[in-house]
Amino acid sequence: MYEAPVDDYKFVLDEVIGLDKLMSATGHDEISIDLVEAVLSEAGKLAADVIAPLNHPGDQTGATRHDDASVTTPAGFADAFAAMAEGGWTSMEAREEFGGQQLPMVLTTAVNEFWQAANMAFALCHLLTQGQIYALQKSASAEHQNLFIPPMVEGRWTGTMNLTEPQSGTDLASIKTKAVKNGDHYLITGQKIYITYGEHDMAENIVHLVLARTEDAPPGIKGISVFIVPKFLPNDDGSLGVANDLRCLSIEKKLGIKASPTAVMQYGENGGAIGYLVGAENQGLDIMFGMMNHARLAVGLQGLSISDRAYQQARAYAFDRVQGTPLEQKPGAPIVHHPDVLRTLATMKAEIEAMRALMMLGAASMDLAHDCDSDDPRATRANLLIPIIKGWMTERALDVTSQAVQVHGGMGFIEETGAAQHFRDARILPIYEGTTAIQANDLVFRKTLRDNGAAVTTLFDEIEAEMQILADHADDNAAANARQMISAVGTAREATAHILAAANDRRRPAVNGVNYLMMLGRLCGGWMMARAGGTAASRLSDTSADPAFMQAKMTTSRVFMTHHLPQVQALAAIIMTGDNAVLGMDAEWL
Amino acid sequence: MYEAPVDDYKFVLDEVIGLDKLMSATGHDEISIDLVEAVLSEAGKLAADVIAPLNHPGDQTGATRHDDASVTTPAGFADAFAAMAEGGWTSMEAREEFGGQQLPMVLTTAVNEFWQAANMAFALCHLLTQGQIYALQKSASAEHQNLFIPPMVEGRWTGTMNLTEPQSGTDLASIKTKAVKNGDHYLITGQKIYITYGEHDMAENIVHLVLARTEDAPPGIKGISVFIVPKFLPNDDGSLGVANDLRCLSIEKKLGIKASPTAVMQYGENGGAIGYLVGAENQGLDIMFGMMNHARLAVGLQGLSISDRAYQQARAYAFDRVQGTPLEQKPGAPIVHHPDVLRTLATMKAEIEAMRALMMLGAASMDLAHDCDSDDPRATRANLLIPIIKGWMTERALDVTSQAVQVHGGMGFIEETGAAQHFRDARILPIYEGTTAIQANDLVFRKTLRDNGAAVTTLFDEIEAEMQILADHADDNAAANARQMISAVGTAREATAHILAAANDRRRPAVNGVNYLMMLGRLCGGWMMARAGGTAASRLSDTSADPAFMQAKMTTSRVFMTHHLPQVQALAAIIMTGDNAVLGMDAEWL
Repeated sequence: MYEAPVDDYKFVLDEVIGLDKLMSATGHDEISIDLVEAVLSEAGKLAADVIAPLNHPGDQTGATRHDDASVTTPAGFADAFAAMAEGGWTSMEAREEFGGQQLPMVLTTAVNEFWQAANMAFALCHLLTQGQIYALQKSASAEHQNLFIPPMVEGRWTGTMNLTEPQSGTDLASIKTKAVKNGDHYLITGQKIYITYGEHDMAENIVHLVLARTEDAPPGIKGISVFIVPKFLPNDDGSLGVANDLRCLSIEKKLGIKASPTAVMQYGENGGAIGYLVGAENQGLDIMFGMMNHARLAVGLQGLSISDRAYQQARAYAFDRVQGTPLEQKPGAPIVHHPDVLRTLATMKAEIEAMRALMMLGAASMDLAHDCDSDDPRATRANLLIPIIKGWMTERALDVTSQAVQVHGGMGFIEETGAAQHFRDARILPIYEGTTAIQANDLVFRKTLRDNGAAVTTLFDEIEAEMQILADHADDNAAANARQMISAVGTAREATAHILAAANDRRRPAVNGVNYLMMLGRLCGGWMMARAGGTAASRLSDTSADPAFMQAKMTTSRVFMTHHLPQVQALAAIIMTGDNAVLGMDAEWL
Repeated sequence: MYEAPVDDYKFVLDEVIGLDKLMSATGHDEISIDLVEAVLSEAGKLAADVIAPLNHPGDQTGATRHDDASVTTPAGFADAFAAMAEGGWTSMEAREEFGGQQLPMVLTTAVNEFWQAANMAFALCHLLTQGQIYALQKSASAEHQNLFIPPMVEGRWTGTMNLTEPQSGTDLASIKTKAVKNGDHYLITGQKIYITYGEHDMAENIVHLVLARTEDAPPGIKGISVFIVPKFLPNDDGSLGVANDLRCLSIEKKLGIKASPTAVMQYGENGGAIGYLVGAENQGLDIMFGMMNHARLAVGLQGLSISDRAYQQARAYAFDRVQGTPLEQKPGAPIVHHPDVLRTLATMKAEIEAMRALMMLGAASMDLAHDCDSDDPRATRANLLIPIIKGWMTERALDVTSQAVQVHGGMGFIEETGAAQHFRDARILPIYEGTTAIQANDLVFRKTLRDNGAAVTTLFDEIEAEMQILADHADDNAAANARQMISAVGTAREATAHILAAANDRRRPAVNGVNYLMMLGRLCGGWMMARAGGTAASRLSDTSADPAFMQAKMTTSRVFMTHHLPQVQALAAIIMTGDNAVLGMDAEWL
């Protein structure tokens, strides 16, 4: 049902991203493409054989909360998580001092695609835990790091993020949860909602990372602190002590990712949950910002992952289903040969491969940033790419999963088929970890207007210089890709200039943000596909390469250029003509 | 929760479509805009007060099949249907000789929007019944018409369409259900799937219209006949006789429209269900074609309807929810004032109003065709518009309902909110009554290539001539709309020329069909919005008109031109460069 795209990763890492050079630059000389292939193959097996088969049954059962406030995940989930831990897969990202393998993000991200594609609702648990490990590594005291990180690395404990409250979603300024200092810890009181895996049965302990306000904290976002609030209080030797004062009040009935319990968590019903401060008081927002790039890359990855899962299912159906005789085919030929089905699958494939290559570029930019702070110049490219990756891949996942339903015809609407689940599951992705509008605001205001377009211009220059060289390629298709990209870069520069020029009324860039983000997503996707196509063209005459594989890569790049890249032009036109039209709309006229 | 858009219909019919002239041309001089307003207001009340409140509970409960093969619809559905019948709403469309009111389609279509927006799963039952009334009026014998149509007009009986079989969906050639002649009737044996309201508790009797093959029928689509197969056999006086040999085997567990029972129907488990031939043997496909425009317009209308319902819910949420302080607003201002939320709602509104005006244009073209056969020249415009309406409106409903979820943020993903239901419900629309690819094939092969582009060129000429006049309008915005439309018509002509020129390989138009359909949807939507904007501009100085209403119309037209019309350019670029790229993809490379 699911096959991990190991060959595509090998191509992207080796031929598009340039693994060896990247590994040298990041101090991972021991990691060769052969090692990568071996790791990905092993991960792919676990994902395909153990985790993927739990996806549809997990959706049908869903997570269940019981009267004692415990939560049961679907059958097989706990065992699968144990298998992940046993295989060492929960330890890939963490630092060696905490028992981790400290592997580069290009590799861990590739592996994480397989978990997310196999079973997004299941893999969310590890995603959250990984985010917390990252935050604690960056901001917690050595004592807390040593107490809380190793059990999470071993897959015995899991982690959560507790940000949202009923009145406080996108706007964290309105958080009300209280923290009162009480000796070496704080007492936490309040309610948190939308807590993914806030309660479950897959781990011995759950470490909640909770945003709250101390008693004399300043109002707004400057008065937020972060606390570790474990379900069971660990003893100094790491063994589990008494239960903390917290409880899962309920879990949500959701459109998708039903196997993933989304908890309402109540803290301090009996005097206050014990919490340990991370960093210093009122540094909460900085700590959250420090892990934001990782978290947003991870959710963008979910967009890619569920797109590929849905695509694989649609492809399998299209090769199996017979309906009508496709043009220029014999009776009995499956529907994949109907030109419109071929178009649908080919355009899905092209977008997925563009996402994957851009995902690797983003992960590489994170590796090259060496965990530096976000205001370090080494992080500039990552800072620019992350909102694009998160916004573009999650928004496009809605369309890809929808097209996968469409390929199934009437069967796509029947839940038993499973295509509908991907469509439902994907719908959370442009919402959580910052809506697309939040990504767009980040992109336009922080990453574009703040430096007066410097970072994005550097990006355009780099793409254009590369494409100028590619335009001289002897292969007509490779050269055509380059010419289309050069034109698209020019268009993107015009749209950027418009946004910079119109920034005196800040509502105008705010109106344009989402379209700007989607435009840059296509542009960067096209960049990667042009590069892939160019490499494939050069390798066509290479006897060591599989010619069909390389022809497929070239054809896929042409499909991207002809079917997805034209949106750069359309979105630029919208940006350059449409902001005033929207702002002319009185809300009362809606 | 739902308010019927009576004012918008009044504007569209009076100022955009030209009601009086249309009513004169179609022999309905008695129907004035005041009468229309009165009818729509009454229908709007029933839709809002009685039918709409059943929508979300109906989704939660769903339809239920019992062990005795009976099916129960959600609480309130049967009473609501009785209220529709009592109000005379089930009799609007049918001919007067059968107890109908024989109202023009522009009026009945407007009313039907309200039922579909209020509760799509509920209103589907009437949609199917209406389709069957239409088919019987056109093709059944007088005896059968008099026996079966009046009870459906009165809302005592309902109708179904039985086309699909497990191996036979889009391709009706593979239908296997058998009909054996037995005196004055036939004995029907076979299984039909996806039968909407195939069994339910809202009517005394259910009249199934079933496609089947007689014993010596030719193979393929030329050997299909249509039969009336009632659940209970009526006596000559119309009273109910014995139960027929048919049974609901099961109902599907679906992604959406859960309150609408989608039945697997088994015919002839005990010797054969009694069926009455409609028309002559082997005329089944012609009979189906004869009602196709009506059925496809009705499903396109569902796309508009659910878009408006989802939009209304998102708008209400955006005016209620406070989150962050929008730019240039005071703390406490609701999220509707965030520029991106304003953009989202404004672009939704613009597309919905374009759909509504085009829907009325399509209905008017049907009224002007006077129920003539599809090869009658009077039907040419309707024949061209119907696949565009069905395909474009249902595809865009996916995006509009998705945006409505997005406006809700995290709440949109929680089923209790109700936004997710519209997103799920809408997903069937581009699939049933002919997938978007089928609409596109119809548009490209039958409606464009067959007459060598004559009908579509006539349409372009008409749009362009109207826009040339509008371009001289004193109002800058009205003139700008016209200029953008003239440019878009030119682009659409180029794309059409490409399709005509590339038709030697029929796979190329087949690849381009869906993008061509979506391009023409935007173009025709823009035509209507330019006309609306021009009228609004002219009425701004008219003291009898509400200036805010007219300003809103003008602004909405500008939003359409700047945010939706640019897709004409993008889709034309895809058409003109992308067909060969797709056909270069070997299916084995997918």
